[in-house]
Amino acid sequence: MYLRFVKKLSWLSILCFASFIHSTESTLLTTKQQFELAQFTTFAGKTIKQVKVGWESYGQLNADKSNVILITHYFTGNSHAAGKYHSSDKNVGYWDAIIGPNKAIDTNKYFVISVDSLANLGVHNPKVITTGPASINPDTGKPYGLSFPVVTIRDFVNVQKAVLESLGISKLHAVVGASMGSMQALDWAATYPNWVERMVSVIGSGQSDAWTTSLLEFWAMPIKLDPNWNQGNYYDNQFPIKGLTQALMAITQQALAPAYFNQQNPQHTPLENAPLNDIRQQHGVVKWLTNRAAARAQQMDANHLLYLVRACQLYLAGHQDNLSQGLPKVKAPSLFLPSSNDLLLMPYLAKESHQKLLVAGKRSSYLEIEGDLGHLNGINHIQQHGTTLATFLATEI
Amino acid sequence: MYLRFVKKLSWLSILCFASFIHSTESTLLTTKQQFELAQFTTFAGKTIKQVKVGWESYGQLNADKSNVILITHYFTGNSHAAGKYHSSDKNVGYWDAIIGPNKAIDTNKYFVISVDSLANLGVHNPKVITTGPASINPDTGKPYGLSFPVVTIRDFVNVQKAVLESLGISKLHAVVGASMGSMQALDWAATYPNWVERMVSVIGSGQSDAWTTSLLEFWAMPIKLDPNWNQGNYYDNQFPIKGLTQALMAITQQALAPAYFNQQNPQHTPLENAPLNDIRQQHGVVKWLTNRAAARAQQMDANHLLYLVRACQLYLAGHQDNLSQGLPKVKAPSLFLPSSNDLLLMPYLAKESHQKLLVAGKRSSYLEIEGDLGHLNGINHIQQHGTTLATFLATEI
Repeated sequence: MYLRFVKKLSWLSILCFASFIHSTESTLLTTKQQFELAQFTTFAGKTIKQVKVGWESYGQLNADKSNVILITHYFTGNSHAAGKYHSSDKNVGYWDAIIGPNKAIDTNKYFVISVDSLANLGVHNPKVITTGPASINPDTGKPYGLSFPVVTIRDFVNVQKAVLESLGISKLHAVVGASMGSMQALDWAATYPNWVERMVSVIGSGQSDAWTTSLLEFWAMPIKLDPNWNQGNYYDNQFPIKGLTQALMAITQQALAPAYFNQQNPQHTPLENAPLNDIRQQHGVVKWLTNRAAARAQQMDANHLLYLVRACQLYLAGHQDNLSQGLPKVKAPSLFLPSSNDLLLMPYLAKESHQKLLVAGKRSSYLEIEGDLGHLNGINHIQQHGTTLATFLATEI
Repeated sequence: MYLRFVKKLSWLSILCFASFIHSTESTLLTTKQQFELAQFTTFAGKTIKQVKVGWESYGQLNADKSNVILITHYFTGNSHAAGKYHSSDKNVGYWDAIIGPNKAIDTNKYFVISVDSLANLGVHNPKVITTGPASINPDTGKPYGLSFPVVTIRDFVNVQKAVLESLGISKLHAVVGASMGSMQALDWAATYPNWVERMVSVIGSGQSDAWTTSLLEFWAMPIKLDPNWNQGNYYDNQFPIKGLTQALMAITQQALAPAYFNQQNPQHTPLENAPLNDIRQQHGVVKWLTNRAAARAQQMDANHLLYLVRACQLYLAGHQDNLSQGLPKVKAPSLFLPSSNDLLLMPYLAKESHQKLLVAGKRSSYLEIEGDLGHLNGINHIQQHGTTLATFLATEI
């Protein structure tokens, strides 16, 4: 029974991309704060009024504001990177294993800050503050739907920059992000090289190549195929919950790897009776994945998922014509930590940027994370490289 | 222009899982033949009346009928394994590189035969003969739809056995299959060990583990989500062409690997103007994949795809309680040829069966196919192991 409970916790932690490993130890408390911009201009030149995003911080900003580490979050995540809101909370932020007092990202030294993205997927999570297609357009009093402008990784970066500037910050000791967060981290370094002193890309990439852009489209396709989606106008009707659930099923499987997936389904047998006898029935493993995705879908919005897919598809560090134009602008030493068995953002993607930086005469290191979780090694096994990370953060620049 | 044409041909060959490599050399001519069974009982005990399937052969059956090699085909394939129907045909069968006079599977020595599967995906291809949910149920005069019984890899094997028996054959010099064909090959060896003298599994597996069963479900999901699917009753109405197209997009991408996919899209840039400025627009690479899948969908049936997915999900070589019960029944020496960068049926799946056979004291060899095509290395780069294959087929048993 105890083992079963532990297993359930462990699975939930994977689903939420959150690590429970330090949950009993964490003494870090945080609060979700809100930042508002009266007007924001996107990379593509469109205007969004009354942009609100949430943010969290851990540790203390020093007098000369030189100890800031920005954490940029992944696709299904938000700014809850570490700690708890209340000491009685069961869950901690997703990278609590490496963020906190005396941890790899030491909150006794650093002021660590993270910001909810635009069009954040968890828009119905009470702890997320975001502006996206599900938000009310102040000009119409109705949800934007597809009239919300396309947003890019650069727009997430620019909103973060506005949050930091509102705190009087003009320099980052480091920017560290996993997956979609890695895209923001590297774009920060290439776009605002005078801000960024160190850059860490975890399970990341320098651009979305044809393969990745196409792979990401499979997350958007089920939503658009769901008749309830209705070109994004579903806020007064049935939500496209089937399409959103299927998108989350794809995300969950692609973010894992076979060994872990099979361990979680020890009862699986191909020749199951129900699906053998009725084409309408499904295997237990399919129901298992469906139920978990459906549970996650409750706090998410289908249009927001489409906008995040698009932001990732458009990603090119530096937002120049190509990567060889963007990367030479980076001044920060870089550390790439891809996961060796990642099926979503395979290590070749991080290696491409690492090598281009070296060719451009930059300081860059590359080290793979090992584990049985595929892409999610970057979240749940990141502490494996805690010492490397701490050393990198202490590097003289 | 010539290069462009070659590239187009090459891409088409991938899409069709067919190799053009020997297209100008092939002198092999074949004819699609039809086999009919008045009644067939499935592995699950259901009856199908008037089962018709197509078959092809290459080479001559010898006097004692001891030179038979059965080729079992993959998911999107059919029995056109080699040669042409007419000397003027542009295309050859998918494994023409290894099947023919003086080739690895030498039609001067062997009588090579292949049979269209039940519920064959290419039911609207005039060169495919199959019985499945799109077929007319003789009892009702209407298409079966979902009233067609679930069929399994074992049922494909049993139909092949009936075809062979109708020709007076009772022994296979070898059974050789790729992907879904590998499932049939190994099930043949485990189920009818006195028939099978040699077994070759190319890009294959011994069972569908939880990971694979779930991965396959993503091919079924878009069809079921398409409102035109209508629980499989669409034969008098609009076909679920969007769902079928999306399923084929997934199959195509999963059967390839990043390097090849990117080479085919050299014009790709993440920051494309149209998708940057309009959420409704798509990247060129997505349109490219969609158009190719839509073209393939013309000859295919959505319900047939669901039935093939189910057959593969239910696959367990030997159809016992587990693989460790099925594999010890194999008598044939086995040769496993997975593709090293396969993302669909990863090498660990073939290795599992190879190792279980060795543990059970059987003769088994394992060798990976290299190339930039992922799963499709097993179709388009199979000639890389032509000598190994020829040697294996000549092995004394």
